[in-house]
Amino acid sequence: MRVPVELVKSYRLLNHGPVTLISAASGGRENVMAAAWVMPLDFDPPRLAAVIAHGTYTRELVDASGEAVVCIPVRAQVELVKRVGSISGRAFDKLSEYGIATSPASVVKAPLIDGCAAWLECRVVREPHSEEAYDLFILEVAAAWANDAVYRDGRWSFPDDSWRTLHHVAGGGFFVTGDPVAG
Amino acid sequence: MRVPVELVKSYRLLNHGPVTLISAASGGRENVMAAAWVMPLDFDPPRLAAVIAHGTYTRELVDASGEAVVCIPVRAQVELVKRVGSISGRAFDKLSEYGIATSPASVVKAPLIDGCAAWLECRVVREPHSEEAYDLFILEVAAAWANDAVYRDGRWSFPDDSWRTLHHVAGGGFFVTGDPVAG
Repeated sequence: MRVPVELVKSYRLLNHGPVTLISAASGGRENVMAAAWVMPLDFDPPRLAAVIAHGTYTRELVDASGEAVVCIPVRAQVELVKRVGSISGRAFDKLSEYGIATSPASVVKAPLIDGCAAWLECRVVREPHSEEAYDLFILEVAAAWANDAVYRDGRWSFPDDSWRTLHHVAGGGFFVTGDPVAG
Repeated sequence: MRVPVELVKSYRLLNHGPVTLISAASGGRENVMAAAWVMPLDFDPPRLAAVIAHGTYTRELVDASGEAVVCIPVRAQVELVKRVGSISGRAFDKLSEYGIATSPASVVKAPLIDGCAAWLECRVVREPHSEEAYDLFILEVAAAWANDAVYRDGRWSFPDDSWRTLHHVAGGGFFVTGDPVAG
């Protein structure tokens, strides 16, 4: 079940460095891409930094709408992550062609990808120089959600391997999030 | 043994989102802090983005020198990571007081923390607005090294749990990097 996460604690969803899916929508079009270069930037206001490369269709939709959703996929979705990470959505509707189920977000138009561990609905804090020079976007979290199958009371708890979050190394190679360090 | 890593592939050391130790040196003073908010930013030139909070002693040394080393610690060093992450080095020489062994870097003055999995010697690409507004630094990798006990031929290979890299969740809680996803 999707449950709300307090905004000032939403960095915890991303703090361990998992790979993400970034969705965007504008003018009735929507898309999703895989993105590993995403990290928290501040607690309050809750902000993220994300690299969204120029030339991508998602970039075009983020530029046009000023919004995005950062979704955190799990082990069971690794094929989906690879698939959406290896083709452009410009001439190919990834969401419908791949049958990717989505749900409406609460405050942005970009969709939530079903089955993920968590979702961060974001608005772009415009920084034209960083966006142009580095493809680096500042995103402010406007709403945050976690899947209570895997995140409860501010803590990750992976019920089994299929629910573990993913870490991208290179070229479609991933690690799952491992065990907590005791102590 | 410390072996060089090709600069354009150095993002692979950081791509899976591990926690880091950032060391800095200036005018004969040196320090190290824990930093989870570090990510690759570009392949070529090889660049990172890192949050280095204002008011920290490391920030003062990075500002003064324009250099830093991003070190990637392993499970066996988790107490060191917690320790250097919970006290300021301004009035307390963490490296000597905690007996943290270091080695000289090759192109910057900041030290390499011994026992880590990897080290990225960096120069600051000055971006005054990002640094001031977000504590966000752009770092260009000038030299990269991996410990061949754990990273060889461009790939991570953890010989045992003590060599796994770490992912910070919150409040001194960490996951280790888990197993590779097959396929």
